[in-house]
Amino acid sequence: MTFRSLIAAAIAPLFAALLAGPAHADVLIENVDGIRIDEDGDLDRFTALWVDDDGTIIEVLDKGDKRPERPTYLSDMEGRVIVPGMIDAHLHVMGIGFGALTLDLSQTNSLEEALALIAEFAQANPGRPWILGRGWNQEKWGLGRFPTAEELDSAVSDRPVFLERVDGHAGWANSRAIEMAEITGKTKDPAGGRIERDASGAPSGVFVDAAAELVQKVVPAPRPVDRDAALYEAQNILLSQGITAVADMGTTLLDWQTYRRAGDSGRLRMRIMSYAAGIEDMEVIGGTGPTPWLYEDRLRLNGVKLYLDGALGSRGAWLKAPYTDDADNTGLPLLTDTQLRNKMSRAAMENYQVAVHAIGDAANAEALAAIEELSESYRGDRRWRIEHAQIVDPADIERFGKYGIIASVQPVHQTSDRLMAEARLGPERLPGAYPWASLKDAGARLALGSDAPVERAAPFVGMAVAMTRIDGDGMPPGGWMARERLSRMAAWRGFTADAAFAGFAEGRFGRLVEGERADFVVIDRDIARASPQAIRETRVLETWIAGKQVYRRGD
Amino acid sequence: MTFRSLIAAAIAPLFAALLAGPAHADVLIENVDGIRIDEDGDLDRFTALWVDDDGTIIEVLDKGDKRPERPTYLSDMEGRVIVPGMIDAHLHVMGIGFGALTLDLSQTNSLEEALALIAEFAQANPGRPWILGRGWNQEKWGLGRFPTAEELDSAVSDRPVFLERVDGHAGWANSRAIEMAEITGKTKDPAGGRIERDASGAPSGVFVDAAAELVQKVVPAPRPVDRDAALYEAQNILLSQGITAVADMGTTLLDWQTYRRAGDSGRLRMRIMSYAAGIEDMEVIGGTGPTPWLYEDRLRLNGVKLYLDGALGSRGAWLKAPYTDDADNTGLPLLTDTQLRNKMSRAAMENYQVAVHAIGDAANAEALAAIEELSESYRGDRRWRIEHAQIVDPADIERFGKYGIIASVQPVHQTSDRLMAEARLGPERLPGAYPWASLKDAGARLALGSDAPVERAAPFVGMAVAMTRIDGDGMPPGGWMARERLSRMAAWRGFTADAAFAGFAEGRFGRLVEGERADFVVIDRDIARASPQAIRETRVLETWIAGKQVYRRGD
Repeated sequence: MTFRSLIAAAIAPLFAALLAGPAHADVLIENVDGIRIDEDGDLDRFTALWVDDDGTIIEVLDKGDKRPERPTYLSDMEGRVIVPGMIDAHLHVMGIGFGALTLDLSQTNSLEEALALIAEFAQANPGRPWILGRGWNQEKWGLGRFPTAEELDSAVSDRPVFLERVDGHAGWANSRAIEMAEITGKTKDPAGGRIERDASGAPSGVFVDAAAELVQKVVPAPRPVDRDAALYEAQNILLSQGITAVADMGTTLLDWQTYRRAGDSGRLRMRIMSYAAGIEDMEVIGGTGPTPWLYEDRLRLNGVKLYLDGALGSRGAWLKAPYTDDADNTGLPLLTDTQLRNKMSRAAMENYQVAVHAIGDAANAEALAAIEELSESYRGDRRWRIEHAQIVDPADIERFGKYGIIASVQPVHQTSDRLMAEARLGPERLPGAYPWASLKDAGARLALGSDAPVERAAPFVGMAVAMTRIDGDGMPPGGWMARERLSRMAAWRGFTADAAFAGFAEGRFGRLVEGERADFVVIDRDIARASPQAIRETRVLETWIAGKQVYRRGD
Repeated sequence: MTFRSLIAAAIAPLFAALLAGPAHADVLIENVDGIRIDEDGDLDRFTALWVDDDGTIIEVLDKGDKRPERPTYLSDMEGRVIVPGMIDAHLHVMGIGFGALTLDLSQTNSLEEALALIAEFAQANPGRPWILGRGWNQEKWGLGRFPTAEELDSAVSDRPVFLERVDGHAGWANSRAIEMAEITGKTKDPAGGRIERDASGAPSGVFVDAAAELVQKVVPAPRPVDRDAALYEAQNILLSQGITAVADMGTTLLDWQTYRRAGDSGRLRMRIMSYAAGIEDMEVIGGTGPTPWLYEDRLRLNGVKLYLDGALGSRGAWLKAPYTDDADNTGLPLLTDTQLRNKMSRAAMENYQVAVHAIGDAANAEALAAIEELSESYRGDRRWRIEHAQIVDPADIERFGKYGIIASVQPVHQTSDRLMAEARLGPERLPGAYPWASLKDAGARLALGSDAPVERAAPFVGMAVAMTRIDGDGMPPGGWMARERLSRMAAWRGFTADAAFAGFAEGRFGRLVEGERADFVVIDRDIARASPQAIRETRVLETWIAGKQVYRRGD
C-alpha cells in the first residue's frame, strides 16, 4: 500500500464531510416576529432564521437582509412571535415523568380533599400493589401539623400507600406500608432523618428526609419499561411549556440508562444537562470525567448534585439560628464539613461540575466556605453551583460574587413559600430570603428554574414571578420584599442564555445566534413588551428543537 | 405555518441524506489477492473492494469487472492476500486487557518458574498494593496438586497476592491475602464454591469457583481510568491478531460503561457483541431489551451469559458420573434447574439472547433440557447459545440439532486440555469430548472462539486446531479423536460468518459481501490453500475495519 493511499484512506471521512457540505438541506424559517438576546446581550428583533441541516443557525436575518438564493425548505411562520427555547436550570426529569404516572396531590387544599382523591385513585387502580403519589402540603391544607397513618388508613388500608411531600423532603405512609417496612417505636431515627412519632413513640406516619428511605426501600422499583414511559411523559410536559433544555438535578444510573435508551433509539427530543445523584452515580456514569455532549447536544453528564440540607417546609433546611416556629430546631446538615469537602474534591479533581443543594443560611454559608477552600486547589472555570440559595445571611451574600459562583434559584418557590417562610424565619431573617437582586448585584450569575415536580415547570410564570415576586392571586400587591425583583432581561436570560452557561452549554444552545442550535418557541405574545401579568399567561403554540418542530399546541 | 412547509421541515433530514449521497468519499481497495466466502457460502476470489464512506461494501470486484469511474480514494494493496476479518465468538475483552496489565503466568512450566516470575514482578512493581495475575496451571506444571499459600509467601509475603487459575475457575492467594479476606478454618465453603484446606481444615491457599469471591471481594476495584487503559490494551492485542469483532462473554455494567466511554469518544475501534454478566447487569444495561447496534455496528448488548457449571481443570465441570480421577466428585451445578429456567425466561421474555456456559455432560444435558422447555413459550429466531459444549453425552448430541441451537466452542481448549481431559474423564467418555464434527452433523451451528484470556486470542491457530486437533508440538500425530475435526471451510466460517450469525450480526459484518462492513485482514499467505500447519503460522500484516486501517504490523 502506498503512503499516499494510506493517508488518503485515513482522511477519507474528514474529506467526505467537506464534500457533503454543499449538499445539505437547509431550512429558512421565514416571516417571524423574532425576539432574542443578541451576542452582546442586547434585545434584538429579527424576521427570519436560516438553519443548517444539523439544526444549527447559519444566519439570523432581519427585514432588509438578503435571503439565501434557494433554500431547500421554507417554513412560513405567518408573522408569529418566536423567542429562544426556554431552559429550566433545576428540575427532576424522571420525577416529572413518574409524577405524571402517579397520584398528584399538589392541587389539594385540605386533608379531606386529599383523602378522597387517594381513595378514588386506589379504586381506579386495583392492579397496583402500592399506591404511590406526591405533592401533599400540610401547610397549604392549614393543618398546622403533619397528617397521620391512621388518617391515610381511612382512605386505603388494603394496600401500602406512600406519598411524598410537595418538597420531596418527607413521606407519608399508611399502616400497611409501615408494617411492610418493619418500622416500630423501637426503630431509631437514621442519620439525617426523623421519624415523626405519637405520644407513645410509635411512628405516626410521616418520615422526614433520610427517614423516608426506611419506607422507600420496600417500595418495588419501577421496571425499565416504566422508566421509558415516564421519560416520554416528562418530555411531553416540558416541551408543551416551551422548555427545550433542562438541568436534571440528581440523575441516578437508572435515570441515565433511560436517557441513553431514548438517545440510542432517537426518542430523546429535548436537551438534558445531567448532574449525578451522588459521587457513586457520577463515577459509574461518567467514569473519568464529564461525558462528551451526546446525541447532537441532547445529553451530557456535567457533574454531581450534592445535598447539604433539607427543605424549609419540613424544617430540614439548616439554619444558623433556630426556626422561629420551632425553638429547639435549626434543621440539620446532611453532610459533615469533611464529607462535603471530600465529595466536592473527588468531583472537582476529575473536572466534574459541582452543584450543592443549600437552602438554609447555615447551609449556604457552609457551601460558600467549601467553595472558597476548594477554589485554591481547583482553579479555572469551575462554575460552582449553589442550588436554591434560598435563605442567605445578608453578611454572606457578597461571597457569591467570587470564584464564578452560580446561584441556581427557583422564583416560584418564593411565592409558594411566602407565608411558610415568614412563620419559619420571622421578620428579622426575611431580608436574606430569596435575595435574587442582591445575589446578582454581588456578582453571582443567576440560573433560573422550577424545581419541577416540586413546582410546575412553567418558565413564563417563573419569569413573571422573578420580575414581580407576586403570586397567581396577585399577592402581595407590589411584590414581597420587592427590592429583590429582577429586571425583565435578567429574568429572561436566567431562563435562557444564563441557564445554558450554568451548564457549560454556551455556544451550543440558549441563544438564537449564528452557530448555536435553532431551539425556539412560538408564543402568542411579545414578552419583550408584555406586562409581567401578561407574561405569566403566555401560551406556547409550538416548540422547535434543532430547527425541527417537536411540539404543537392541540396535537 | 403551511402544511407543506410542516411536512418539508419534518422530512428535511431524510432528504438531506439522499442529497448527501452523491458527495460521499468512496475508496477503491485495489490490486488485492482476495479470498472470501460468498453469499452462497462458496469460496470466491476477487481483486478489488469498492467501499462507501460509511465503511460498507458497494461492490466486490474481480479481474474482469469494471471499476468505478473515478473513486475518491485508491488504496493499492500491491497484490497481497486479504480475507474477511476474523471474529472470536467467545472471549473476555476486559480480562484480556487487565491480563496485559497484570502478571501473566500462562507460559510457566513449573511451580519454581512461576514463583520466580511472581517475586520478580513484585519487585518491579513496588507501588502496587496488591500483586494480581492469572494463568497458572498446576497440571501443566506436573504438580499433581494445587499450590499452597506458603509456597506463594516464599515469593511475596509483604503484600497480598491473588492469582487466577488459567481457566478462571480458581484463585491462589498468599497468607497476607487470606488474612485480609478474614478466611479461617471456620469459614464454610460458599454455595457453588470450595475452599482447599490442609489437614487441619485451614485454608491451604486455593479457592475454587464461588469461593474465589471470598478473596476477590477485598481486592480494590480498578478505577475507570484503569478500565480505559485495559480496553485500549485489549483492542491492540485483538486487532494485531486479525480479529475485527468479538463476542464478549460476561459484560459487567462497569465493562459496558467502559465500552460506551470509548464509543462516545471515538476510541472504540473493533466490534463487540456483548453478553451481560448476569440478569442484573442485563437489566441495567439493556433495560427493555437488547440495545440497538451502536457506533456504526461497533457495539450491541445481545443478551446474557449464564454460568451453569465450572471447568474441567478445577473439577468444577458438572458431570453425569464422577470424575475418573476423583471418585467422589461429579463437579457441581452453579444454578438449580429452577434458577436456570427463571433466568433464561427473564431474558427470553424481553428478547435477549441467552448464552449458557456448559462444560460437563450433565451441564450440557441440563442446558439442552431448559432450551427444549423454553422453546415452547419463546418461539422464533432465538439462537440459544451453549458456550463450550465441551463434554457431551453422545446420547445428547442430536439434541443440539433442534431449536437453532448454537454450539460456541473453543478449538484450542481441546489441545490444551487433552491429557487433563483423559485423566478426568477416562477413555469411555472421550467420544463425547469436544465433539465438533458430531455437533455440526447433528445440525448445530458452530461458532468458534478462543475464550481469551484463558487461551491466547489467535484465530488462525484456532482454525488450524479445528482442522486437525493437533497441538503446537504436532501432538498427537493424526489428531486427537480425529473424526471430530472440522473441514477447512467449516473452521473458517466458524471464525467469520457463523460467529457473526451467532451474534445476530449477519448482514452487518462477518463476510465480504455487498452491503456489509468492509472488515478485512491482510495476511502473508493463502489460507484457502495452505496446510493447517501453515495456517497456524499465518502472520497478520494489517487489519482494516469499515474500510479503514486500524492495525499495521510493526507500527
